[in-house]
Amino acid sequence: MKQRVITAVVALLIFIPVLVAGGMWIDWLAAFVAAVGISEVFLMKKQILVSVDFTLAALATLTWTVPNSFFGFLPKNWSKWGVFYALVMILLTWTVLSKNKTTFDDIGVYVLSSLYIGTGFHYLAAIRNSDPVYGLWRLLFAFVIVWTTDTAAYMVGRKFGKHKLWPVISPSKTWEGSIGAVIIAVIVTAIYVNLAPVGGDKTSLIIASFFLSIAGQMGDLVESAYKRFYGVKDSGKILPGHGGILDRFDSTLFVLPIVALIFGI
Amino acid sequence: MKQRVITAVVALLIFIPVLVAGGMWIDWLAAFVAAVGISEVFLMKKQILVSVDFTLAALATLTWTVPNSFFGFLPKNWSKWGVFYALVMILLTWTVLSKNKTTFDDIGVYVLSSLYIGTGFHYLAAIRNSDPVYGLWRLLFAFVIVWTTDTAAYMVGRKFGKHKLWPVISPSKTWEGSIGAVIIAVIVTAIYVNLAPVGGDKTSLIIASFFLSIAGQMGDLVESAYKRFYGVKDSGKILPGHGGILDRFDSTLFVLPIVALIFGI
Repeated sequence: MKQRVITAVVALLIFIPVLVAGGMWIDWLAAFVAAVGISEVFLMKKQILVSVDFTLAALATLTWTVPNSFFGFLPKNWSKWGVFYALVMILLTWTVLSKNKTTFDDIGVYVLSSLYIGTGFHYLAAIRNSDPVYGLWRLLFAFVIVWTTDTAAYMVGRKFGKHKLWPVISPSKTWEGSIGAVIIAVIVTAIYVNLAPVGGDKTSLIIASFFLSIAGQMGDLVESAYKRFYGVKDSGKILPGHGGILDRFDSTLFVLPIVALIFGI
Repeated sequence: MKQRVITAVVALLIFIPVLVAGGMWIDWLAAFVAAVGISEVFLMKKQILVSVDFTLAALATLTWTVPNSFFGFLPKNWSKWGVFYALVMILLTWTVLSKNKTTFDDIGVYVLSSLYIGTGFHYLAAIRNSDPVYGLWRLLFAFVIVWTTDTAAYMVGRKFGKHKLWPVISPSKTWEGSIGAVIIAVIVTAIYVNLAPVGGDKTSLIIASFFLSIAGQMGDLVESAYKRFYGVKDSGKILPGHGGILDRFDSTLFVLPIVALIFGI
């Protein structure tokens, strides 16, 4: 417990100033957490990081994460998407050159993970940098929903939980916790959008919080599903007492792209 | 052999008029072969087609295949890429809802296949429709290289082949066949670009044919690698005597995107 608190304090001491500063600081943070995220997928699959596989998968992930302006140097009929596609084709070629030591299935996992992790963390920076004033409050809008949902699900579930939500994937979650979390998340969001300068229509944002709270819980279950599939308890160990980056950002990876869509980013 | 010839004649009788007609005819052909292509991946994985998995994977594939103009109806901050990403997130959600009967690894294969097959066949139609006159000849430029490379590799290999190219993946290919195929492909391309109205710089296209012939052979080996991984001989049975769509278009899927890039499509 003490370790858990120390980790949280240290992480927030780094995280909060970077959120406030925005710009290249949060671009670098997003790239860092995305790179750690993809490395956790490799660790879950028990594959080594000093490899052609990991180098290509990390590049594919970062292709999605870095700001769009990063690709300004490309010739006109190229795009971020073209770079990603080229990396996928190189990965496919690698199945041949590695003599099927890296298989089609492996490449599938890398491509899926790089999309999911890379795009999720892209929006961490893109939402913050979408506007000098609103950006920070829009990003906190996402975190308010995720954190409220997580905490409320745990607390309501502990107090009133009777009916298991999805025991084959995540045995301790309950329907009471899940529904309670959505209700509390909507209430807290209603308060938040009336206090913070987020821009946009308040009613729409409160309605959106209902779906975002569900999406956040889905992100949590998806991560539980693949951890169960790979037979691991935590995705990594970078945050002592909290597990890995993917453990901590599972809901966020689902919520951030939707928040970006809502604000037209 | 008789069956093989009949299939080829029937296929060309459909294929050639569609290539010449272009427009929506080739758009539909591309969508059809892409849908068959992704179904072959499911058959190789021994998974059924009447399923949520296949429906989503087919939609993801077609998202890449259909012409870009198809997405004109989308709101302004959406894109083809956004639709694909949404389908990927729904597929991930499906791992939870199916209680891990569909796993993270399965979704990886679907996402990779939809990118690889969907984008490859997209360019079949996009190259043809890039220009009313040049389009057809640019598409044939790709096919001339693929067909010359395939045929020459087989014939040179049979006559002069001594050193195995990549026996763990494809036991009958030889270095002599592979190198001979590249040389003959460059010569035939040099003749082709001097006769056909392809547009663009002839010298660059002849130089490109060298790399395209190698890329085509790589596409062939990639398909051999995943067929070997799944333990199947043919990807499908739609073309009696020739195997499946992926068997016939393996090189093409690698070559077409590069040809599109060369012509700035």
